Amino acid sequence: MREVVTALEARVARLEDQVAIHRLINSWGTAVDTGQAEAAAALFSDDAVLRSDMSHLVGPAAIEEMVHSDGQQALIRQGSAHIPAFPLVDIEGDRARAIGYSRVYLHTDSGYEVWRVSANYWEFSRTADGWRVSSRTNHVIDGGSEAQELLAGWFRQDT
Amino acid sequence: MREVVTALEARVARLEDQVAIHRLINSWGTAVDTGQAEAAAALFSDDAVLRSDMSHLVGPAAIEEMVHSDGQQALIRQGSAHIPAFPLVDIEGDRARAIGYSRVYLHTDSGYEVWRVSANYWEFSRTADGWRVSSRTNHVIDGGSEAQELLAGWFRQDT
Amino acid sequence: MREVVTALEARVARLEDQVAIHRLINSWGTAVDTGQAEAAAALFSDDAVLRSDMSHLVGPAAIEEMVHSDGQQALIRQGSAHIPAFPLVDIEGDRARAIGYSRVYLHTDSGYEVWRVSANYWEFSRTADGWRVSSRTNHVIDGGSEAQELLAGWFRQDT
Repeated sequence: MREVVTALEARVARLEDQVAIHRLINSWGTAVDTGQAEAAAALFSDDAVLRSDMSHLVGPAAIEEMVHSDGQQALIRQGSAHIPAFPLVDIEGDRARAIGYSRVYLHTDSGYEVWRVSANYWEFSRTADGWRVSSRTNHVIDGGSEAQELLAGWFRQDT
Repeated sequence: MREVVTALEARVARLEDQVAIHRLINSWGTAVDTGQAEAAAALFSDDAVLRSDMSHLVGPAAIEEMVHSDGQQALIRQGSAHIPAFPLVDIEGDRARAIGYSRVYLHTDSGYEVWRVSANYWEFSRTADGWRVSSRTNHVIDGGSEAQELLAGWFRQDT
Repeated sequence: MREVVTALEARVARLEDQVAIHRLINSWGTAVDTGQAEAAAALFSDDAVLRSDMSHLVGPAAIEEMVHSDGQQALIRQGSAHIPAFPLVDIEGDRARAIGYSRVYLHTDSGYEVWRVSANYWEFSRTADGWRVSSRTNHVIDGGSEAQELLAGWFRQDT
């Protein structure tokens, strides 16, 4: 009986981990679109690395600075929505990884523009304060090999 | 042992609450896009309030009426898809709240248009018939302060 | 006590089923956008049927062939993102069904185009190897009755 309950506890903990990791992924867009620099930075571990076609940021302070940057503030004034798609998440103990698409919609004088569609690969670690993003790599979808490889690697690791 | 199991039951109930609230949020679009007025109204509690830049509806009957309205019927004939993004959900006992983006895609002669991108704030209550939406506030993303404040408040309440 | 734990096990299993079915739905897009034909086909049961306005495929081999087709390879070279919306899922024992929207974004010389917005109805079965898609029907949203009926049926079955 104790064994059954212990196994059940582990399964419930894993489902809660899923919810926590979804929450990290889904908090990013709202935080950066509303200029909540501290909230955006707090999603990441101290040694977190964010890579994209345009930037390479290391650590929460650099992420806060990005949110305060002229480029990001211009997007906020224009009206932006960074929206991640439902991700694929794999959890193993205190580490997890995920892939998924994201889109940035921008308000313009003639309606909404799909400004960017990207591929993302995230890594997560369980810290003393709960799950944090430890790495995010983002490449725009443009038929090029970088976004392709970022996503295709997921299926190769699976098998 | 009994204590361990009781704690586990509470954790499972909370995960089930998450699923139920996601379902409420995700049922709305399909219901209004297909003219299912009763199904749309049934997502809401009797005293529910829906606020947007264009409307202020109180209670299920007003919501049903909105689905039957000329404006909504025209969207249905044109071909529309109201799609919420993955929301952020907080549950406390018999109350919950969530924020998240939503988009309306419209079919046009020259393809699909992103007609509207909005910020949403929902409140939920657990009723005798299960979770219901008790309030939804919706503001379009256009760089203005209303959508900004609606979403940014989430992070301020968090801290 | 044993009864309480057995009931809890069933509830946890159901939550895990939800996660597994979300994963099937969310794996499809990434697999076809990156040309992972085997991974795409592996989501389906041996007798799975895929119906759309443009195609009727039966079984994993036909799905693999579709991924290798000239049409799909052209989309991959252009840069595509097949993104499902958060689905509504119903599970009953070893069978499940879901409805939900999906979108295809395409990279073009002048930015991103929302190429297709569709309604989907899925059926799933639990096999010896876990949950698999046993049927998917897809109709584009264009104000026509096919997509409407596909989604509206969900609410009629509910009541």
